[in-house]
Amino acid sequence: MRSGVLLDIAGVLYESDHEIIGAVDAVERLRVNGVPVRFLTNSTRRPKRSVLEKLKALGFSLKAHEVLTPAEAACRWLRQKGLAPHLLVHPDLEEDFAGLPASNKIAVVVGDAGRHFNFDRMNAAFRELVQGAPFIALATNRVFKDADGELSLDAGAFVRALEYSSGTVPVLLGKPSREFFLAGARSMMCDPRDVTMIGDDAESDVSGAIKAGIGKAILVRTGKYRSGDERRYHPNPSHVVEDIAEAVKKVLGSRVKN
Amino acid sequence: MRSGVLLDIAGVLYESDHEIIGAVDAVERLRVNGVPVRFLTNSTRRPKRSVLEKLKALGFSLKAHEVLTPAEAACRWLRQKGLAPHLLVHPDLEEDFAGLPASNKIAVVVGDAGRHFNFDRMNAAFRELVQGAPFIALATNRVFKDADGELSLDAGAFVRALEYSSGTVPVLLGKPSREFFLAGARSMMCDPRDVTMIGDDAESDVSGAIKAGIGKAILVRTGKYRSGDERRYHPNPSHVVEDIAEAVKKVLGSRVKN
Repeated sequence: MRSGVLLDIAGVLYESDHEIIGAVDAVERLRVNGVPVRFLTNSTRRPKRSVLEKLKALGFSLKAHEVLTPAEAACRWLRQKGLAPHLLVHPDLEEDFAGLPASNKIAVVVGDAGRHFNFDRMNAAFRELVQGAPFIALATNRVFKDADGELSLDAGAFVRALEYSSGTVPVLLGKPSREFFLAGARSMMCDPRDVTMIGDDAESDVSGAIKAGIGKAILVRTGKYRSGDERRYHPNPSHVVEDIAEAVKKVLGSRVKN
Repeated sequence: MRSGVLLDIAGVLYESDHEIIGAVDAVERLRVNGVPVRFLTNSTRRPKRSVLEKLKALGFSLKAHEVLTPAEAACRWLRQKGLAPHLLVHPDLEEDFAGLPASNKIAVVVGDAGRHFNFDRMNAAFRELVQGAPFIALATNRVFKDADGELSLDAGAFVRALEYSSGTVPVLLGKPSREFFLAGARSMMCDPRDVTMIGDDAESDVSGAIKAGIGKAILVRTGKYRSGDERRYHPNPSHVVEDIAEAVKKVLGSRVKN
């Protein structure tokens, strides 16, 4: 048995550009104890390059192959199907879609475009869907904790808007897609049942991981967590803890080295 | 028995600023035959004043009390509850909400803001909903036929976006709200079972009217109609006809005067 840990990033490792106290140490403790770690983010406002830079600047040590993003999954999907993306994403994310082969058949790809969501871009994507283009959702999260500390609309709102009006059901590639969690487990060479997911989104990270067959999912009370989230979605979390430091203690249990 | 007719406006009486051929005559034939008529629109991009002006300019004769709009219904609702509106609507519609008493308690009101939907306005409405504000949807139509002849996103897309992320279920005041159809029948002093709705939206106008208890609902193949719409939503239309001229023939049957 080889156990592994999947970590959400925003709201678990950092908040408003600051490390969540103890997060760097917690990740380090997993490594010292030989527990493989993968970082599974649904944030699609920045390219993978920038996710890595940000985590490193905050003091985390990690390698590129340890971070799994929905944009990478989307590129694999588009290559397999021979489709070019019609992107409704944050301009900063566009670099993650560079280098795809050209195609005259397209798929609509929606991420968290934030302030770059506007009627004309939404309507252009809608019209492609009505013409029969396949629909990829990088994420369907309802809300995220914004820089001002309040909740804001996440990609899911705009995905549901397009789904409702076009009648096209999206293929979800980020969490809580079963395939995304399983890709994380596979990349650590772990049986999914021996893996623990740690996240602040009770629906997408926690309930989603358990549904996908991940052994345990721990909800942290940082990031977007709001009182009552642990009972809002089924299945409920395996554990609810204050923060990642406490979550890692739970994971390591008696075999802690330091 | 006093029979009456409820008419949708855009896509039934006109398209892209032109009268649908025979529409003025068809409405006139209803009047000549003593059939009362009410105009029930879900278009919320222009105030009632402008709806009347437009129909008159196209040659229709009608009075203000014959046009029922979701904004009027919303104003009644807000007065009853003592709430002020937080408007996420087209700027042109704002005049229909002038004159409401001030209140420090608000309700979020969403109409078809078109290009005036943007992330900041959507997010501001979302944050009011998360704080517990009631949610009024003037309409939840999926699509409308735009000036360029193509389908575009209607208010429903943005209503569903806010509903999904806030977890707040909207109160719908336009079609297919049961109360909106019944208010139309009541205003003609008709039993709803003796009323016929004529519309181009198979879901909101037609299926909705029948569910609300309106006797018959006729789908016209003008406006936003697309092949297959007659089987897309249940209950199906009572009849499917080419246009309003044919629909009015069906309504008048043998008692036509001219």
